[in-house]
This record gives sequence, structure tokens and C-alpha cells, in this order.
Amino acid sequence: MKILGLDTSSVAGSCALYEDGKILGEFYINTHLTHSQTMLPMVQALLAQCNVALDDIGCVAVTTGPGSFTGVRIGIAAVKGLCQGAGIPCRGVSTLEALAYNLQGIEGYIVPVLDARCQQVYTALFYSDGESIRRVEPDAAMSVAQRADLLMPLQGKIYLVGDGAPLLQSACGQKQVHLANEQTRFGHASGVCFAAANAPDMDAKALSPQYLRLPQAQRELLKKQQQKEK
Amino acid sequence: MKILGLDTSSVAGSCALYEDGKILGEFYINTHLTHSQTMLPMVQALLAQCNVALDDIGCVAVTTGPGSFTGVRIGIAAVKGLCQGAGIPCRGVSTLEALAYNLQGIEGYIVPVLDARCQQVYTALFYSDGESIRRVEPDAAMSVAQRADLLMPLQGKIYLVGDGAPLLQSACGQKQVHLANEQTRFGHASGVCFAAANAPDMDAKALSPQYLRLPQAQRELLKKQQQKEK
Repeated sequence: MKILGLDTSSVAGSCALYEDGKILGEFYINTHLTHSQTMLPMVQALLAQCNVALDDIGCVAVTTGPGSFTGVRIGIAAVKGLCQGAGIPCRGVSTLEALAYNLQGIEGYIVPVLDARCQQVYTALFYSDGESIRRVEPDAAMSVAQRADLLMPLQGKIYLVGDGAPLLQSACGQKQVHLANEQTRFGHASGVCFAAANAPDMDAKALSPQYLRLPQAQRELLKKQQQKEK
Repeated sequence: MKILGLDTSSVAGSCALYEDGKILGEFYINTHLTHSQTMLPMVQALLAQCNVALDDIGCVAVTTGPGSFTGVRIGIAAVKGLCQGAGIPCRGVSTLEALAYNLQGIEGYIVPVLDARCQQVYTALFYSDGESIRRVEPDAAMSVAQRADLLMPLQGKIYLVGDGAPLLQSACGQKQVHLANEQTRFGHASGVCFAAANAPDMDAKALSPQYLRLPQAQRELLKKQQQKEK
């Protein structure tokens, strides 16, 4: 079954076409252009160059967060449109789990880390034995210092992936950690497809963003309300 | 300076846009469609989605072999056309060196290996210390058994990359070797750009395929001529 994967949850955006463990194609950009303008033309070009019609797709997979609030919404909205229009199911996957799959095959801990600004990160922890990847910690929002502290007791190789990886590496000080290379550090829809391969199908109407904290506007509103109450 | 990279030297085909160590975009397909039909539309889509004009490109890099005879010629012909038309320089890189750059950042030996059919491979040997990649052996055509034998004395981790990697892994028997994962195993134009970053500019007219053996048609002709002479 062919899976079309999309990721618009951070600055990098990509779409990929996957079948039975093989990547048939991937279109990735990492500029600061708006995903709402680039993603659907990228999907169109990918399907055209792979000579695959939307009707040939078994399901569409997308990152549902954590990540950029606007980015996640763009991806989910695009997938809802594609799936409801074509009458095909979708699958939602964690942005952090998709990132971990960029490094499948390595042996050691994989720490996906997205910069959530103000020294905060979205992160999780996975372990890869060289064959498969298993989740060790759930997705969470925490300070970069706390993330670094939680890595200190780990034995074995530790690989950092995601746009917050250099930030976390600095916070790790003497603790040796490895940065994923430029080609695998950022979100790739191929990782979305691998993460989605064993996920259950769902109706596009049920697809929703998985935020780990309130958007900035709501956080500021809440802060103001709390200050008024004092 | 922006580098546009192309790779059509094996079944997978891709183009990438690179600037100062960063991949701005990449369009990769690994179907059995003809590169002569897919590559230029892929380049067009990549530049369009990155909002970059051909005039903004500093040079175009391409794999000059070893690899598929027809594939290498398609890539070189496309780059000659692009560069001569736009008046920009080009850079030619070894397909095997470009493959090695898929795995930059690892620590150990990198063995790019392309299936040349009939139990023959195109191969080379590189060493990565985690920071940079250095060449240990020149590009060569040899039997898969010979390639495996030459790996036996090596100490440290050995990573196989390229479409001939599973073939070589089988030939290595008890010797432990690691296969690059699905996302990094095949030629990617991002690797072409990294390999080309420090290569010299050349005029597109001087760009030519680097074959390690004669094409099949010429080999058969030679064989017939030798038989006649006997």
C-alpha cells in the first residue's frame, strides 16, 4: 500500500511517497517560505514525477505536532482536504517520532528535539537497537536545561535530531552527544511514512493537532487574566 | 554560493539546492522511470518551490560516474545544457564520493558500492572521523567477492551505502558490516553538493563521463574481434 506523507510542523517542509518499506520519492525544502504556498505544489510535483495518482494512495500520513502551531495546522488542513476530497483514510503521527525515524538503523538513544523558543524544547526519547525503534519517553515540553539533565544518566551513544539539536548539544556540556548530519537533522516526510506504517487508519474528520502547550496568544491572555484576578 | 546538484547515475535520481553547508531543498525519486523524462521537471519544481532562479545558482554539480552508462550521460547532458545556456560553471564529482557524503558525521569506514551486474561492483573506500570524510581507495570496478576480501582486515565500524550494499553484505559473511538505512542508502543530490563544495569549477564543455570499464556493447564487440583474431 502506498503512503503519502507530509510534514509542515517546522521550518523544513516535505512530502514523501512510500511503499512496503521503500521510499519512492521525496520532495523537501528548508527555506523560510510559507508551507501554505509550497506544500500542495510539492505534493503535485512528487506524484507527477512518480507517475502516481491520488487514487493510487492507500492513506495520507501527517505530523500532528508538537511543532509550529501554524505549521501543524497547515499540514493537517491540507491532509483533511486531500483525504476528504479523494475519500481515503489518513494517519496522524508525532512529529518527534517521525524525526526519530530519520536515524533508523543506528544503535543508541535517539533524542528528537524541536526548538520551542525561550530556551524551551519539545522532546521525547527513543532507543534504536539497529533493527527497530522503541519509545522510551512520551512527547513533552520542557526547558533545554531539563532535557540535558535527563540525558546525563544514559549509558551508550546519544544522537540528537531536530532543529533544536545544536541548542541541546550546547546545554549538554561535557556529556558526549552526536548531532545528526545536515541531511537527516530536520523533519523529513520519509520519516513520517515509516512512523505511520504501523499506525491505525483514521477518518480525516477526526485528525487534530496535538499541542503540548497553549499557543503564545492564549498563554498571554491567560497571564493577563491571572494578573487581573490578583 | 548556491550549488545545484544532480544525480542520475543509478535507478534513483535527484536534484538538490545547497548553500554554505545547508540543504535548501531536495527532490528525490527512486522509481524505474527514465531520468531523461523526470530530471528537468524535478529541477524546475525544486527551483520554483525554493523561489530561486537559475541565474542565482553559482555552479551546477553532477555525478560523472561510475554508474549506469545511460544514466551518467543523461545527467551530464542535462548539466551541459543548463550551464552553457545560463553561462554558469559546473563541477563533476565521483558518484561513489557523493554516496559517501550521505553518511557524513558517522565514525568509521564508508564503503560506497554500486551494483555493476554479473557479481561486479563499482566501489571505493572512505574514512569518516565524525568531522570530515577522507578517501582511502580510488574508485574501482571489481568483483563483489574481491570487495568483501579487501574489507576483512579493516578494524572499526564499516558502513555500506549504495544499491549494491545488500549484495556486498551477503558476500561479507561473518564480518560485521552495517547497511545505511533506506533514506540514506541510495544516491542523493545533497551528497553531490557536499562532495562538490570544495571541487574546482570547470567549463561545461570539458565535463565528461568517468567510466571504469567499457560499455557492454563495446565489451561484446571487443570479445568478438578477439575471437576472430584467434
